[in-house]
Amino acid sequence: MMKFYFSPGSCALAVHIALEEAGANYEAQRVHFDRDEQRSPEYLRINPLGRVPVLETPRGVLTEVPAILGYIAASYPEAALAPADAFDLARMQSFNAFLSSSVHVAYAHHSRPYRWSDDEACRASMAAKAVGNLADLFGIIERHRLAGPWVMGDQYTVADPYLYIMTRWLAKLAGGLARFPDVAAHHARMNTRPAVQRALQLQGLEAVAG
Amino acid sequence: MMKFYFSPGSCALAVHIALEEAGANYEAQRVHFDRDEQRSPEYLRINPLGRVPVLETPRGVLTEVPAILGYIAASYPEAALAPADAFDLARMQSFNAFLSSSVHVAYAHHSRPYRWSDDEACRASMAAKAVGNLADLFGIIERHRLAGPWVMGDQYTVADPYLYIMTRWLAKLAGGLARFPDVAAHHARMNTRPAVQRALQLQGLEAVAG
Repeated sequence: MMKFYFSPGSCALAVHIALEEAGANYEAQRVHFDRDEQRSPEYLRINPLGRVPVLETPRGVLTEVPAILGYIAASYPEAALAPADAFDLARMQSFNAFLSSSVHVAYAHHSRPYRWSDDEACRASMAAKAVGNLADLFGIIERHRLAGPWVMGDQYTVADPYLYIMTRWLAKLAGGLARFPDVAAHHARMNTRPAVQRALQLQGLEAVAG
Repeated sequence: MMKFYFSPGSCALAVHIALEEAGANYEAQRVHFDRDEQRSPEYLRINPLGRVPVLETPRGVLTEVPAILGYIAASYPEAALAPADAFDLARMQSFNAFLSSSVHVAYAHHSRPYRWSDDEACRASMAAKAVGNLADLFGIIERHRLAGPWVMGDQYTVADPYLYIMTRWLAKLAGGLARFPDVAAHHARMNTRPAVQRALQLQGLEAVAG
């Protein structure tokens, strides 16, 4: 059986939703960031980066959301969580890579600026600029990357829970979702899916209005 | 025929090497960052993010290095540039996602800190901290992610040119490669490959000693 390590509301929520969508057999284990468990020697043996999510499989450990999502989609083909066509699959992976390396990184400058500067004033400067950077990135998603009704068009894929958790974070920031009506509609659509509702409940979270 | 957009020495070099390894039929077009061509209306129509690399295919445009590398590997199976096994493929994609969202991002705080702060002192603070962050990340690669002789072990994959270009950047920073002997040996090994030498020459670049 697979073991899934998460912190509630983190980007691991995308993986949790994908596991539920796939009907996977897995055990979920919370990593208590409030107790700094992600820095414990035990956890660093699992993931030397000290981050979530981690998917521990009989074959070994997987890290990084885009790779874990791709693996879940490949492991449960009957759930059809990724395009079968090689080019469309690459486009989905491109979107997930963009979320990981640009959108998540922009958020981290708001929530974890200490990663990139030891200076308090600098951290405040980064957090302030992050709001505008996120608006730019969500503008690109709204105009160019959301085919509708799902990210890739008619097929629901693992790109959808990944966008969903990024949008969930956006909803909590000033400005929020109102400026991005298609992204907001996607979020509302996701909130109606039973797998999303189960994953939220398993992490002790409430849905955020789309 | 595919069209490949690059700026010399950027992360697009990883894609250029992969195209050469695959024996792909492609046309390379330089995007002149020195003339701000990546911000031109023509280029923003191709990639709204204004970044390289882009791979323009008969099916449409692909962005993001991990996705482009995965697509090249999938499109030229006879070159065997990715593991055939689904779990090993996911591990390779995990490594590439880590390079993209952690290692490249750490570099960007050194070379492009203006992305994340408008304040000059803050940019200097980020650039300084980036050197230590990169050392931490390359420490993880050296200890945990480089199976040897190639990233994934005996099989040369698209993870190798991606690590190569990150290591190339590291070699130019204070401290450089000396602290990471296995990473340095990987770089030296890459320098001997004809496809690497061709890609460097096509971009007008010199090899950096491993």
